[in-house]
Amino acid sequence: MRNTAVLLIACPDKKGLVAAIANFLLAHDANILHADQHQDSEAGLFLMRVEWALEGFTLGLHRFAETFAPVAAAHQMDWRLALASVRPRMAIFVSRFDHCLADLLYRQHAGELYCDIPLIISNHPDTHWLAEAYRIPFRHIPVNKAIKPDAEAQQQALLAAHHVDFIVLARYMQVLSRDFISHYPNRIINIHHSFLPAFHGAKPYQRAFERGVKLIGATSHYVTEVLDDGPIIEQDVTRISHRDDLEDLVQKGADLEKVVLSRAVKWHIDNRILVYGNKTVVFD
Amino acid sequence: MRNTAVLLIACPDKKGLVAAIANFLLAHDANILHADQHQDSEAGLFLMRVEWALEGFTLGLHRFAETFAPVAAAHQMDWRLALASVRPRMAIFVSRFDHCLADLLYRQHAGELYCDIPLIISNHPDTHWLAEAYRIPFRHIPVNKAIKPDAEAQQQALLAAHHVDFIVLARYMQVLSRDFISHYPNRIINIHHSFLPAFHGAKPYQRAFERGVKLIGATSHYVTEVLDDGPIIEQDVTRISHRDDLEDLVQKGADLEKVVLSRAVKWHIDNRILVYGNKTVVFD
Amino acid sequence: MRNTAVLLIACPDKKGLVAAIANFLLAHDANILHADQHQDSEAGLFLMRVEWALEGFTLGLHRFAETFAPVAAAHQMDWRLALASVRPRMAIFVSRFDHCLADLLYRQHAGELYCDIPLIISNHPDTHWLAEAYRIPFRHIPVNKAIKPDAEAQQQALLAAHHVDFIVLARYMQVLSRDFISHYPNRIINIHHSFLPAFHGAKPYQRAFERGVKLIGATSHYVTEVLDDGPIIEQDVTRISHRDDLEDLVQKGADLEKVVLSRAVKWHIDNRILVYGNKTVVFD
Amino acid sequence: MRNTAVLLIACPDKKGLVAAIANFLLAHDANILHADQHQDSEAGLFLMRVEWALEGFTLGLHRFAETFAPVAAAHQMDWRLALASVRPRMAIFVSRFDHCLADLLYRQHAGELYCDIPLIISNHPDTHWLAEAYRIPFRHIPVNKAIKPDAEAQQQALLAAHHVDFIVLARYMQVLSRDFISHYPNRIINIHHSFLPAFHGAKPYQRAFERGVKLIGATSHYVTEVLDDGPIIEQDVTRISHRDDLEDLVQKGADLEKVVLSRAVKWHIDNRILVYGNKTVVFD
Repeated sequence: MRNTAVLLIACPDKKGLVAAIANFLLAHDANILHADQHQDSEAGLFLMRVEWALEGFTLGLHRFAETFAPVAAAHQMDWRLALASVRPRMAIFVSRFDHCLADLLYRQHAGELYCDIPLIISNHPDTHWLAEAYRIPFRHIPVNKAIKPDAEAQQQALLAAHHVDFIVLARYMQVLSRDFISHYPNRIINIHHSFLPAFHGAKPYQRAFERGVKLIGATSHYVTEVLDDGPIIEQDVTRISHRDDLEDLVQKGADLEKVVLSRAVKWHIDNRILVYGNKTVVFD
Repeated sequence: MRNTAVLLIACPDKKGLVAAIANFLLAHDANILHADQHQDSEAGLFLMRVEWALEGFTLGLHRFAETFAPVAAAHQMDWRLALASVRPRMAIFVSRFDHCLADLLYRQHAGELYCDIPLIISNHPDTHWLAEAYRIPFRHIPVNKAIKPDAEAQQQALLAAHHVDFIVLARYMQVLSRDFISHYPNRIINIHHSFLPAFHGAKPYQRAFERGVKLIGATSHYVTEVLDDGPIIEQDVTRISHRDDLEDLVQKGADLEKVVLSRAVKWHIDNRILVYGNKTVVFD
Repeated sequence: MRNTAVLLIACPDKKGLVAAIANFLLAHDANILHADQHQDSEAGLFLMRVEWALEGFTLGLHRFAETFAPVAAAHQMDWRLALASVRPRMAIFVSRFDHCLADLLYRQHAGELYCDIPLIISNHPDTHWLAEAYRIPFRHIPVNKAIKPDAEAQQQALLAAHHVDFIVLARYMQVLSRDFISHYPNRIINIHHSFLPAFHGAKPYQRAFERGVKLIGATSHYVTEVLDDGPIIEQDVTRISHRDDLEDLVQKGADLEKVVLSRAVKWHIDNRILVYGNKTVVFD
Repeated sequence: MRNTAVLLIACPDKKGLVAAIANFLLAHDANILHADQHQDSEAGLFLMRVEWALEGFTLGLHRFAETFAPVAAAHQMDWRLALASVRPRMAIFVSRFDHCLADLLYRQHAGELYCDIPLIISNHPDTHWLAEAYRIPFRHIPVNKAIKPDAEAQQQALLAAHHVDFIVLARYMQVLSRDFISHYPNRIINIHHSFLPAFHGAKPYQRAFERGVKLIGATSHYVTEVLDDGPIIEQDVTRISHRDDLEDLVQKGADLEKVVLSRAVKWHIDNRILVYGNKTVVFD
């Protein structure tokens, strides 16, 4: 794991922003490893991600906020500091389909996803064995319309108790309430099994099959209050043909879902994503 | 050019269909070069494409229909015979964007598309120079709401006079009337600059940009009376990022449109496409 | 699982082959579900795969060989019959990298790979936990130059005792001896972590990185006596950039390797692959 | 066309480089539009591309070199300044295959490639008609072993007379002499019809066909004295199957070659490419 810090910034675009940040970092002997920026000229917005080595950095991180405050104030910056060495805590929600869960667990185990997984929550007991294989706590919380408020209260209590930083919906087939979502802005990542905005909502493979498309897709996005409408993080597609029946689509799609979801999770963990408006910037 | 015949068949699925066709062809000494079939088990449909060498084939093609009739009748076959040596006659409709037109003209010239192009029709004079470079007759027929019926009548007269077999809408920005379309069932190929059914209708790149998708697409399809809803022939996508503005999308999309349209046109010419329901089978 | 039979045929190309097979099957009331063929005109070879429902098929399978013999003899056919309901027995060889192993175990568990896995053999103990999670017998057989003959003898004894049909080298880092390979012609599937024939041999990612390629690849192939030179079954690539260091290549490549290997294994299990010369036909 | 300047820099990596450049530009009121950097930690190299608006920039460009000299000297920078408004002058070399030529001419005409084309040179007269359609001067200079030195002298004289900045080999089938190449370091772009380093040298499609690969590729690269070994700019691949004969490979490959070459040319024109060692950085 790299001993680096990442600073994410969004502010109104104007001259001198790169210099302001570079000078601030240089003043404290930072060795910049990556710096990437984006201007949205329509929105007049400047977005930046800069990563530097902490070895040799002369500013104590506990004093970063107060020291950086004047720079941030001068340029009306929204900013966020993250340390690459800190493992964020990810909860996984899952229902019966377990391919995304199995994929995430393997990648975390293999060191590809630098995070802790203190908790798996499912409305079905089916995936318990996988949680056990990877020694992750598993909680079965049934959900139906009548008990949903109770179930969500239980979920939130668990998330709080486990100090969860963000949630991944790994083919979790329940719609979360607006209230639940409002507690985790840009901190719930969902995988939808279509190339959004095509086939948003229910049964996307069925509808793709009926429409006779030649490619199927998957989309990972942050969850907002409007179903399948949040900021898109990643998408990909795979080719199908008339020989593929609905079951083939489901199977080919599963491979897509795994990859598209795990990329989004990795970028989130690596602090590469900035949300603005209903879009994302994913810094390389 | 190969001296071969292609038979395309659709009929209710049952046992013995492959044998029936193979035996009919063998009885006339056909050397089968390709045979491909597809069953749609839900629809109970059998679809087949078989291609054989005409050298050594002992049945005169003028007598094919009457000789094959009993087989076709016994199995309720819809069928169509095509000769690879016959160049179908393709008309191209175009407006101002000329990338698809330039691409089709080059491919036809290079021998990649085995067809004749007796006619280019445009509602703008802009692409006249390209038609001239490739020595293809060009007709400028302005269109607006008031004169559309007249314009279409003029178009249809030209298509008839030039014995046109099928029409390619190479970014033709006018909506054809239902009446016009009804004269060319499964014989008008359109390119839509999105991954249908996402962003059907107007300004797909603009809407893709606003939605923040990570891939843009293009779709070629047969034109039916419902806009952007006909049987899909081919689709493809390309990756974009937050760095791409609307103009970049248009440019990256243009490359997709060319490829996706030209594949559809080639498959149509090669008699590889069978339409059933609102889908296509594209035989390899 | 479908109750079907698959017949794979290779023979010298001539007229009447499709009819001969279709008639044989029809004579026993077979309902053909898929039939696909390929002619290699240079080699004068005819290759076919035909699959039919066993329900209603009037020829007992124990009598298939003798009944089909005259047809096969008349056309000099090499042929092989397989039943979709029979689960082939797959052994997995693995070393320390466990991503392909984890992927194969998950897919088999999920029903995507219709096979039994009676045995995992490794020259390292590291992946034992994965075998345990999926309850597959695991044997640790160390290998080095001195003890290789002994190790291979031990491996072969185990393969025989477990009635293994084919072997998958899931990033097994030992070169098998010619003698070992000769016992399993076209029955050992390897994954090589490059786009063959580029970077055959050792350290392909390192060499790809040094050459500055813009895409990296993976190749699954049957193992023959010449290293990395057997018939290619499947290949795929993924994009990299100057931002990717060697470690990134290894990680991006791992995702490729999993997909490219699992496709090859699935096609092998589904009896879709015919080897001829040093090439494969993979029937759709 | 944007009224911007691009500065490309390569120097030994150390702290303060971003700040040094940002401060220099800010001192002259530059509005930075894009800044992208790359560190090669192994080589200890810092590479940067920065683009700013010239409107409001207070340093006259005729004085840029002398004003920037102290900064460059302090950090041992290799640097190059380019103006987006200046159209570089591109010569195209071509033989008989004309698909890349047709593609480049169309893209330049459509405004996609911001350059002038003062000259097409061919060792065959076949593509004259295309040059004429786009009104580009065409020179036919036959080449064979005996007259190659004369031919190259003639070519160089023409290139000088037309003030050519860089050369594109659009399927030019002659090997250029070392001497010729030495006059245009990193200024000759070639398209090779394989996925290098696989199938370097002659007849790559033939060899790909014989090896039975499942994907074919194309590679654009700068020409160096070692054949097909220069710094790779871009690569892409497309899927083939056993159904594709050699002619199909050539045709599918042609589409790849066009795209892979035109991307390289566009990036070269946009001053996005930095060569270091035998690799390229292509800034987004």
